[in-house]
Amino acid sequence: MSKELKLGEIARLVGGRLVGDPALCVKGAAIIRDATSDDITLADRATLFDELSASSAAAVIVPDGLQPSGIAYIQVRDVRAAFAELVMLFRPHTLREAQGISPFARIESSTVLGENVNIHAGATVGADVVIGDGSTIHAGAVILAGCRIGRNVTIFPNAVLYENTIVGDRCRVHAGAVIGAFGFGYETKDGQHLLSAQLGYVEIGDDVDIGACTTIDRGTYGATIVGSGTKIDNQVMIGHNCRIGKGNIICSQVGIAGSCTTGDYVVMAGQVGIRDHVHVGDRVNIGAKSGVGADLAAGETYLGVPALPSRTQMQIMFTQQKLPAMRKELKQLLRIVEQMQLRNEDGGSQQGETSVPGSVQSEAA
Amino acid sequence: MSKELKLGEIARLVGGRLVGDPALCVKGAAIIRDATSDDITLADRATLFDELSASSAAAVIVPDGLQPSGIAYIQVRDVRAAFAELVMLFRPHTLREAQGISPFARIESSTVLGENVNIHAGATVGADVVIGDGSTIHAGAVILAGCRIGRNVTIFPNAVLYENTIVGDRCRVHAGAVIGAFGFGYETKDGQHLLSAQLGYVEIGDDVDIGACTTIDRGTYGATIVGSGTKIDNQVMIGHNCRIGKGNIICSQVGIAGSCTTGDYVVMAGQVGIRDHVHVGDRVNIGAKSGVGADLAAGETYLGVPALPSRTQMQIMFTQQKLPAMRKELKQLLRIVEQMQLRNEDGGSQQGETSVPGSVQSEAA
Amino acid sequence: MSKELKLGEIARLVGGRLVGDPALCVKGAAIIRDATSDDITLADRATLFDELSASSAAAVIVPDGLQPSGIAYIQVRDVRAAFAELVMLFRPHTLREAQGISPFARIESSTVLGENVNIHAGATVGADVVIGDGSTIHAGAVILAGCRIGRNVTIFPNAVLYENTIVGDRCRVHAGAVIGAFGFGYETKDGQHLLSAQLGYVEIGDDVDIGACTTIDRGTYGATIVGSGTKIDNQVMIGHNCRIGKGNIICSQVGIAGSCTTGDYVVMAGQVGIRDHVHVGDRVNIGAKSGVGADLAAGETYLGVPALPSRTQMQIMFTQQKLPAMRKELKQLLRIVEQMQLRNEDGGSQQGETSVPGSVQSEAA
Repeated sequence: MSKELKLGEIARLVGGRLVGDPALCVKGAAIIRDATSDDITLADRATLFDELSASSAAAVIVPDGLQPSGIAYIQVRDVRAAFAELVMLFRPHTLREAQGISPFARIESSTVLGENVNIHAGATVGADVVIGDGSTIHAGAVILAGCRIGRNVTIFPNAVLYENTIVGDRCRVHAGAVIGAFGFGYETKDGQHLLSAQLGYVEIGDDVDIGACTTIDRGTYGATIVGSGTKIDNQVMIGHNCRIGKGNIICSQVGIAGSCTTGDYVVMAGQVGIRDHVHVGDRVNIGAKSGVGADLAAGETYLGVPALPSRTQMQIMFTQQKLPAMRKELKQLLRIVEQMQLRNEDGGSQQGETSVPGSVQSEAA
Repeated sequence: MSKELKLGEIARLVGGRLVGDPALCVKGAAIIRDATSDDITLADRATLFDELSASSAAAVIVPDGLQPSGIAYIQVRDVRAAFAELVMLFRPHTLREAQGISPFARIESSTVLGENVNIHAGATVGADVVIGDGSTIHAGAVILAGCRIGRNVTIFPNAVLYENTIVGDRCRVHAGAVIGAFGFGYETKDGQHLLSAQLGYVEIGDDVDIGACTTIDRGTYGATIVGSGTKIDNQVMIGHNCRIGKGNIICSQVGIAGSCTTGDYVVMAGQVGIRDHVHVGDRVNIGAKSGVGADLAAGETYLGVPALPSRTQMQIMFTQQKLPAMRKELKQLLRIVEQMQLRNEDGGSQQGETSVPGSVQSEAA
Repeated sequence: MSKELKLGEIARLVGGRLVGDPALCVKGAAIIRDATSDDITLADRATLFDELSASSAAAVIVPDGLQPSGIAYIQVRDVRAAFAELVMLFRPHTLREAQGISPFARIESSTVLGENVNIHAGATVGADVVIGDGSTIHAGAVILAGCRIGRNVTIFPNAVLYENTIVGDRCRVHAGAVIGAFGFGYETKDGQHLLSAQLGYVEIGDDVDIGACTTIDRGTYGATIVGSGTKIDNQVMIGHNCRIGKGNIICSQVGIAGSCTTGDYVVMAGQVGIRDHVHVGDRVNIGAKSGVGADLAAGETYLGVPALPSRTQMQIMFTQQKLPAMRKELKQLLRIVEQMQLRNEDGGSQQGETSVPGSVQSEAA
């Protein structure tokens, strides 16, 4: 981490245009919040310039066209790519050279391995497992019998795939994730909860990411399915028999109960919960902490417990904050109207009327 | 998966009565949602017949007495048992033959093993552990010193039992579950959070299922207890010193803080949270996402944050959705009544009255 | 567990003053709830004396000055310390003698180990890892390349540290915790979710506890930081680029989205959720199940979804329970006022007035 680079060198390296002193030295690359006076930082939009001015960064990478003031800058076409290059330069990526098949991995002889497969020491691979070209199984991962893993997949340390799990190409399964455990289905007879059939498995499409400590249960008789391109964050729970669509984004700590189905490109924010047997339509957006108890129509944004269309829910939430004041007003009104009734009755009696339909009893007081 | 069976053969196999062409061939067994024209499916009640008609299934298993139309069917006494048999026929269960004690398991010499115990390669069993007859410890599971595990227990891959954990007979502890980690109890002195005593352990009764990545913390001085017959889903958290009753059903992502007690046959739906030191009575039902802050009386159903009797909460939730309209009405009323007051005062002044107790100030506006 | 001690001996042992029969024997130490007639228990405040009277405990440890009635007691200065001593006496702690470096651990040759380091069989330690004096790595834990672990740290079984994780002195990382997995950041191009740069790492200060199955994601380019003295319960999720302050208490199942920052001594109760890029000020308290969507000012207590100052939210929650009654009252008022309007209009017509601004339409009905 003791590397030191001149801005001129950096500009050449990332193919950018430097405005500032080419001899100025920087020793690291960090986001604005963390940057010291030795660091170069990045700002991919002008709205960050205030924060930038307040930081002590020595220089900044910006997109072509933007011109921050009071700081040396390098304009590039793709800020994030250029910055990533610098980060890797200052803090070279820990080497994970091709490892091959470790003699300390436990691999059943019936396993079929593609080319350039890496299986680290301490990984366990059961009978009849198939692993595609270029895939990596890290230490402590356990792949039970009959699993089929595609090409260029990474199974991180201590992840577990129960028997017969299918994983598509280019998936990443992070540490501690558990795919294919028993579904939570019981029938109660004479006070005993009897586990339902657990004959199914989990089928993960291509390009799926599965976060650390996420759990996806097997189907009862067939598959629990996660569609291609879907990204799942840490600590998500997907119940048995679910069928998650393509390109979904499922944030941390979401829980989806059994037999739910989702369309394509659904987005669920953190800590959402979905009841069993619910269908969520294509491109639905569900706000954080929402509780979904019924099917959701495609294309809509939902929020709250129970989840309602977002605009409706926002109005309700806004009004809730007025509730104590509303209650006070309501009480005042009750008093005033009672007074009026009394007077009216007095006045009304002159005309022989008793028109008001009963007196108001304050129940909410 | 290339097996093919005639309906006649299937009917004989499951001891059912076929109505349809006995020569018709099927190649798989799948639930209605997933069934193709090559599959036999199941429908255990008539309300599924619409969904069945819309599917392309070739045939269906139904209970005695039911007669779906437009599809070949086989009537049996126990639909689920018969269907499970077919699923296993078409997709034979991955063999997990008796494995015995793997030479690649790490087992302390002081461990006492019953008969027919299976310990897979890569499992770790600490000193003075006792494992009962017929139990299985999978790869990567870690059983620390002093644990006592009953008969016919399965500890799935990478589950962890801290020292002195007690597990009853016929329990299943799924992958990634952690039993007996330290409780979250601190005393703060001079700005330092000091960990309380961590001298206790966890005691699990018989026939308990514990889901993947579920965590149950040890007691401070004694036991955290889970009663016999209780079933716990994935990613549930049970705090230190809790005493969970018998036959509870605890769904995914429920969190129970320290020192709670529950009666028997309590049901908690997904993502429920329970404050520390709360008692939940026998046969209480707690709806999804509820937050429990106080003791709950036996036999009731509760819902919401804070949890209230379900009917009360449903009414409140229903009324919340009327809130924006209520606010509008309230404002209108305020305006009208003010108008009336003004007029009354005009009229009233004739009689020398100023009877209305102050004017209404709209605070919620 | 068959040990038996006389109260006289116990009093001497804990340096306390016995009031009761010194020859009375006890066979165990348990909290009041669990104590049998063979047990000594503890009561560290007088408010527990009712519960104590109802228990069958044989004797009790109390603080100097307190005098429970109807039971033998021992007064001591520090009740919890004395009681912990007794618990350990009756149920001696499972020995975890210095283990040294197991020949069955998998350790890269470039690893640098301090003095008195314990690495258990089945642990995996990658290239260029540094482990400080007195630290312990348990079975199944995986420490990837480039990690730096301080002194007297315990990494419990099956925890995972991704590459370059930094852990300070005296930390505990419990079983199944995952530190440094990829952040959940994607850019969507042509319907494909492309993972952002994952070049960062996680940096944990000194004296930090991390609970079982908790996950802390790496920064995008730099560090995700957890400050010294912070205690994190089980199943907590901390997103990429977060910067958690010192001395925080983060209870179970809390989720903190990416790029959040917290001050010092923040307390978050169970199942709290915090949106990305939010700042939580020093000494903020956040109530259980709250949902935080915006910055929170220092020193305040917050509650609810969205999180509001606790007193405000309590009022709102209290009023919500009045909602159905409020709606009923509002409807009654509507009816009465309509009646009044009608009458007024009748009366008003005498004076040629139509003063009331339109009739009230019940929208909430």
